[in-house]
Amino acid sequence: VIPGGVYGHLKTSGLDPSLPQFFERGDGSQVWDVDGKQYTDLMCSFGPMIVGHGNPIVRRAAQQQAELGDTLSGPTKRMVELAELFVETVPSADWAMFSKNGTDATTMAVTTARAATGKRVILVARGSYHGAAPWCTPNPLGVVAEDRAFLKYFEYNDLPSAERAAAEAGGDLAGIIVTPIRHDMKHDVELPDSAFARGLRALATRASAALILDDVRCGFRLNVQGSWENLGVRPDMVAWSKAIANGFPLGALTGVSSLKEAASSIFVTGSFWYSAVSMAASIATITLLREHNGPEQMRLTGSRLRSGLLERSSANGFAIRHTGPVQMPVLSFDDDPNFEKVLHWTVQMAERGVIVHPWHNWFLSTAHTIEDIDRVIAASDYAFASMRGKFDA
Amino acid sequence: VIPGGVYGHLKTSGLDPSLPQFFERGDGSQVWDVDGKQYTDLMCSFGPMIVGHGNPIVRRAAQQQAELGDTLSGPTKRMVELAELFVETVPSADWAMFSKNGTDATTMAVTTARAATGKRVILVARGSYHGAAPWCTPNPLGVVAEDRAFLKYFEYNDLPSAERAAAEAGGDLAGIIVTPIRHDMKHDVELPDSAFARGLRALATRASAALILDDVRCGFRLNVQGSWENLGVRPDMVAWSKAIANGFPLGALTGVSSLKEAASSIFVTGSFWYSAVSMAASIATITLLREHNGPEQMRLTGSRLRSGLLERSSANGFAIRHTGPVQMPVLSFDDDPNFEKVLHWTVQMAERGVIVHPWHNWFLSTAHTIEDIDRVIAASDYAFASMRGKFDA
Repeated sequence: VIPGGVYGHLKTSGLDPSLPQFFERGDGSQVWDVDGKQYTDLMCSFGPMIVGHGNPIVRRAAQQQAELGDTLSGPTKRMVELAELFVETVPSADWAMFSKNGTDATTMAVTTARAATGKRVILVARGSYHGAAPWCTPNPLGVVAEDRAFLKYFEYNDLPSAERAAAEAGGDLAGIIVTPIRHDMKHDVELPDSAFARGLRALATRASAALILDDVRCGFRLNVQGSWENLGVRPDMVAWSKAIANGFPLGALTGVSSLKEAASSIFVTGSFWYSAVSMAASIATITLLREHNGPEQMRLTGSRLRSGLLERSSANGFAIRHTGPVQMPVLSFDDDPNFEKVLHWTVQMAERGVIVHPWHNWFLSTAHTIEDIDRVIAASDYAFASMRGKFDA
Repeated sequence: VIPGGVYGHLKTSGLDPSLPQFFERGDGSQVWDVDGKQYTDLMCSFGPMIVGHGNPIVRRAAQQQAELGDTLSGPTKRMVELAELFVETVPSADWAMFSKNGTDATTMAVTTARAATGKRVILVARGSYHGAAPWCTPNPLGVVAEDRAFLKYFEYNDLPSAERAAAEAGGDLAGIIVTPIRHDMKHDVELPDSAFARGLRALATRASAALILDDVRCGFRLNVQGSWENLGVRPDMVAWSKAIANGFPLGALTGVSSLKEAASSIFVTGSFWYSAVSMAASIATITLLREHNGPEQMRLTGSRLRSGLLERSSANGFAIRHTGPVQMPVLSFDDDPNFEKVLHWTVQMAERGVIVHPWHNWFLSTAHTIEDIDRVIAASDYAFASMRGKFDA
């Protein structure tokens, strides 16, 4: 009764049939599949869980709001409080709008950039994921070429390619959308070159175009102030979703004051965009991450995970790369052009009670303890060992 | 900190500043605004609330699921159960996919129609609302003309106009999207002419195109089997959202088996599309509506509301129209081209503790009792009386 069994990014049938597809429950860093098997979850629902499954503080905030009301005939105070919290937390945010999907937020950003500038061209890094709407879905089946009219492409971390794309746009450049790191599937995760980030900022400013940071996947894992704050690069708008409410459905767009009028002039809405429970959960989540410096906590456990995996792979005679910010890494094997090694390793990890992904970046949460990490490293030892003889080391 | 104060369809600043904008809580048929004023809610959050704010059975189902898990690294059994419930309840549904927004569902339907047929043109009724994405938002600011390439327009309830649009599409007709009733803002609500509905069905079949019913706004209020079931017209796909989970965020697309493969071939997804709490709430909501024949219950209270309002307006010397299905009516005054009378009346109703809308259809729920309806009718008497002298009767 569900096309393809499961569709979208959580579908495991394109990976290996032995990987868990349907889940029963989650608690902190642990999840249980429908067969009752327990796993340490290093995918965190592909990003949303950032302070742990069923975090009691977030759930209490959500529960208290649910007793009052969720979807009403207008927003509640929570919407104003959450917008204020974004403005107070994120230096580039002078205002905030809320939605349900990350795709809603990136689409609103593009629409706002066009409304503000009266121009049409949007520069996009080739291969970057910005959502699953017709203008950005990576699989163009059912989508018409016109849905991507006025998109022009550059290569991530290649400023001259962005400058060439901007030159092609001439006077019609409305915006540049870019992810804070290069997290394309089936690629090592690449950190942004700081000259590239600064160059995009300058390019947008020169062209009176909006620089849009698509922080949907990274937001609040690397830096609560925004993922390019450490580079000193401030975008004009930031799209958020995934982790901002610890799994409660919410997207957000924040922006600088010069774009506020344009943002209020476009018509975007949804039946549940003003619902209060997700907003209460978001306030609790962001407050927790700020108070306990969540990104730093995940950096520490993530670093331990990285050194452990590098050490265990090497001890077993395999050369791996473990790339990206340690809070959102991906593991790949040398000499593995068809991803056979990493898929085998992923299946072995699942058998030993750890959920990772062979070619999508993983996600840590603040619920992962040192003990969890050490258990993952121990499992990896078995997984690497199981490959000896089957694959060239 | 929020562009425009509030944006989207819940914004009251375009109506009258005295109308309530921010709410504190809801319970059954009643809501309280942030100033503590209580209202009988005839907007039901613009559709989502169908068995009452905070319905205890729906909330218990959601709460039980929340204790297990919501957004996990895959769906739970609830997704399969809910898909099965749709298939069992809705005759045209052989499969179901889930999302968060109604716009997600209509957009998936269009994408599936194009993927299935390899054709591009979609027929749309002029002025019909199908969501707030670039291809369908009613305000094209920030949207490029190309986002609507291959849309061709017909007039609602005018079959020859649809046949002309289909002829223009030639061999490139992928689908026809239509709402079950004409519920355009600032128009009386129009029921579908049955020859029109049957004609669209025949037209789609003849052109090997998909007939898409956009039941986002009406779904489960008129008929739990789908809003055109009483006309004997079965669509190929139905887009759902709003009331399907009594305010928990959820969208759905259902379709016939011949479109299942196409539906599984497109790439659509979202971070929270597989979350279990909204699905548990939806199972409880649909089950309640089926068991207690919710649409019939709303038809009875809605009929009482209609006769009461017609009687009170007439007694006060005003000629009104109260159009549409009684579960989703709209009220308009004769000789009110600028909507001044109806806006004044709406403001008076709010003052007397009733939330209605001057030019968007209202929504009844099964939580509205006879006493609620009689209270609304009594309030209307004051509201009509307050207009005497101010407006020509």
